Amino acid sequence: MLNAADATFLATLPEALLRPVTPADVEDPRGRWLGQGAAVAVPRDVQQVAQILRACAAARVGLVPLGGGTGLVGGQILPAGPVPLLLSLERMAAIRAVYPDENVLIAEGGAVLADVQAAAEAADRLFPLSLASQGSCRIAGNLATNAGGVNVLRYGNARDLCLGLEAVLADGTVLQGLKRLRKDNTGYDLRNLLIGSEGTLGVITAASLKLVPRPAAEGAAFFVVPDPEAALRLLALAQARLAGMVSGFELIHRQGLDFLSETLPQVRQPFAHPPEWVVLIDLGLASGMDPADTLADLYAAAGDLVLDGVIAQSTAQRAAFWALRENIPQANRRIGAISSHDIALPLGAIPAFLAAVGPALARIGSFRINCFGHLGDGNLHYNVFPMPGRSRKDHEAEREAIKTCVHDLVDHFDGSVSAEHGIGRLKVGDLEHYGDPAKLAAMRAIKAALDPQGILNPGAVLRA
Amino acid sequence: MLNAADATFLATLPEALLRPVTPADVEDPRGRWLGQGAAVAVPRDVQQVAQILRACAAARVGLVPLGGGTGLVGGQILPAGPVPLLLSLERMAAIRAVYPDENVLIAEGGAVLADVQAAAEAADRLFPLSLASQGSCRIAGNLATNAGGVNVLRYGNARDLCLGLEAVLADGTVLQGLKRLRKDNTGYDLRNLLIGSEGTLGVITAASLKLVPRPAAEGAAFFVVPDPEAALRLLALAQARLAGMVSGFELIHRQGLDFLSETLPQVRQPFAHPPEWVVLIDLGLASGMDPADTLADLYAAAGDLVLDGVIAQSTAQRAAFWALRENIPQANRRIGAISSHDIALPLGAIPAFLAAVGPALARIGSFRINCFGHLGDGNLHYNVFPMPGRSRKDHEAEREAIKTCVHDLVDHFDGSVSAEHGIGRLKVGDLEHYGDPAKLAAMRAIKAALDPQGILNPGAVLRA
Repeated sequence: MLNAADATFLATLPEALLRPVTPADVEDPRGRWLGQGAAVAVPRDVQQVAQILRACAAARVGLVPLGGGTGLVGGQILPAGPVPLLLSLERMAAIRAVYPDENVLIAEGGAVLADVQAAAEAADRLFPLSLASQGSCRIAGNLATNAGGVNVLRYGNARDLCLGLEAVLADGTVLQGLKRLRKDNTGYDLRNLLIGSEGTLGVITAASLKLVPRPAAEGAAFFVVPDPEAALRLLALAQARLAGMVSGFELIHRQGLDFLSETLPQVRQPFAHPPEWVVLIDLGLASGMDPADTLADLYAAAGDLVLDGVIAQSTAQRAAFWALRENIPQANRRIGAISSHDIALPLGAIPAFLAAVGPALARIGSFRINCFGHLGDGNLHYNVFPMPGRSRKDHEAEREAIKTCVHDLVDHFDGSVSAEHGIGRLKVGDLEHYGDPAKLAAMRAIKAALDPQGILNPGAVLRA
Repeated sequence: MLNAADATFLATLPEALLRPVTPADVEDPRGRWLGQGAAVAVPRDVQQVAQILRACAAARVGLVPLGGGTGLVGGQILPAGPVPLLLSLERMAAIRAVYPDENVLIAEGGAVLADVQAAAEAADRLFPLSLASQGSCRIAGNLATNAGGVNVLRYGNARDLCLGLEAVLADGTVLQGLKRLRKDNTGYDLRNLLIGSEGTLGVITAASLKLVPRPAAEGAAFFVVPDPEAALRLLALAQARLAGMVSGFELIHRQGLDFLSETLPQVRQPFAHPPEWVVLIDLGLASGMDPADTLADLYAAAGDLVLDGVIAQSTAQRAAFWALRENIPQANRRIGAISSHDIALPLGAIPAFLAAVGPALARIGSFRINCFGHLGDGNLHYNVFPMPGRSRKDHEAEREAIKTCVHDLVDHFDGSVSAEHGIGRLKVGDLEHYGDPAKLAAMRAIKAALDPQGILNPGAVLRA
């Protein structure tokens, strides 16, 4: 059992290392939980992080690492149990170095994702991790949760964009792993063990990140498709023709466009009558290639797979296309989902899953479904909303049944109940229910080996 | 202390699960060590692998997993201590399934890499892992060692090509992780922990592997460059122009071409007079692009970075270019290296490293240096050979000093002393000397948690 971070404990840390807890530190973006914390530790360097962890270890006090607070599964929110110390890397937000010739950038863990992107762009490079919360999420949080987003199809998730980590383990030891190497087979892969461990195995204080050359030309189009199966065949066609130059392939359902019209009418929509299914395809091309021509060729080659299309004719138009996509989560939030599901499926199973899940949910009640997301990765956000005139509160009693219905079907099709958002505290039970028991046992053994007192983000990922 | 796999122990396993040890099972490809083994376990399925591991755990007997036996660091060779049981997946070599629409292939651990490549090709897909030993190495060995090779620049190493694993842990529990998902954030990344752990944390019995669409057109060229720095600038130019379509970028030194002339005169060489430095550049292009034209454009754009060039005019010629590259290790073997170094450096540090290492070695003695490898990954094979008329035996006394000289400089430039070959038993001391002590301590804690008796590949990676 852990101890609360009481006044006696806080007195063991220099006052300058602490600040009071603000509402933003303990609020959940979806408003489902309220966290607790005795204070927020705000270290300036890795040695101070180590000092804080040594103090927590000595007093057996839990520590909850905060990033930008945008996580959707409660990984940063500890609502009950002994009050923990919170730790924010807000004072460790520097871009330590950029190596354009090596396509490498070193960022402190507290760097905001948009600032990392901007530093890369200033060096004429691209840091491809891109997601709706990039203006506030921090890179250590992106790595701790193995964030995904819209460019995973081409460039991979946060894991794939990290070459090395500096991190502090539960006992305060500092891992010095900030190498700028593309290949390094010297021992176990602690980097990937920490990535995605959601702050339960260590605190990531800095990262060596992969940049890529900016494509010589970029383009985007909305293609209307008859159904998700056609969208998948369009993706295969695009990939066969374009040798890896498809950067994004997002599925959008009419429901999302309707929610946008309803809640964010200022967002410009490309079609007078919202079609049932649209894909947003994004290309990053070689020099000498014209994006609009390339997309027009793809449209022509697609035949019956595509019913209609709009091709961006300028950089501004491409940005407007993406703004539409990125505003869908905001529209969803304004409508208020009863239950949101961040799921992944084998690509080939998506049509069968979608054919099965709608009727299964209809047996529970009448809902509006907004199914959208990163189709190229098999990652759908399958979100269930009340019918017009009703609110999510009216459906609280059905929420568990809805979630179980969706997750059971995902499991049936050999999918994942958390594609990119992680386990946090929301899905601890799902992991126990759907996860491989052997994997869970190995995870518990690793947690016990690296954090025997269980002080790091207690109750996240694994039940405390 | 482990027990030897004596007759009493072997009698606990069904006879049909065992075969006698052959010389190939215990020989090292470079002839440096001779291994030992009481018998070779040859399971037919994962449950038999689990049975074997349970028997080893119960009797506290060491188990050394064998792949194709092509590893260069002794990871598959246990020369001393209690005689272990060997385990070969030679009877588990099936391609279980190919999902062309999903770009996924499921292979058993014993599948030979070339067979995986062929199965992908039969489905009009590419499995991009490609290395000199592909005709005999097995996929479980590739994954256990996180194999690299010639396409890492574009497609990543073995780690990056694996979506999921089936594996057996030291206590015989079976990890069921053969998902076909691009995104799955459900718990700690055991897949990447097992990948690169060289059989010390588990036995990989099957893998879900990423395929990629075959590029619409492929091409290759030899470009003569004045020095490695120009080669790096050429790489940056190619990447800026070609939006990720550079598949390989190999550095070749004149010494390698001379070794080929000397030992394999039948290998056709592209230049009448071997140039000092050549790069082999390989492209996989989008439809409508002409490889020879694209390479000619690159040649023209490169200006002074390229002194001369030969562009493959046919698929056969491209294959011949690659055959030259892939024969260099064979030529090296025939000459007989005193000391071979599989190193990685930050790309920007390569010129300074090369400027420093030659003079440093000259202070030890007179040698021929063949420096070649995967320049795009910062991965050089920096191999030191005797002068003509002398043999590697003449230099046994200097071998340690040579290795230390090279590795110290690699460490100075923040590189890796094992880029793609792993630690095995050869580099256990290097890992202890050059590795991060905090990483080593965490590795030992993980090893103790998952294999408390130390039965899995004892003495590999971590000292027993």
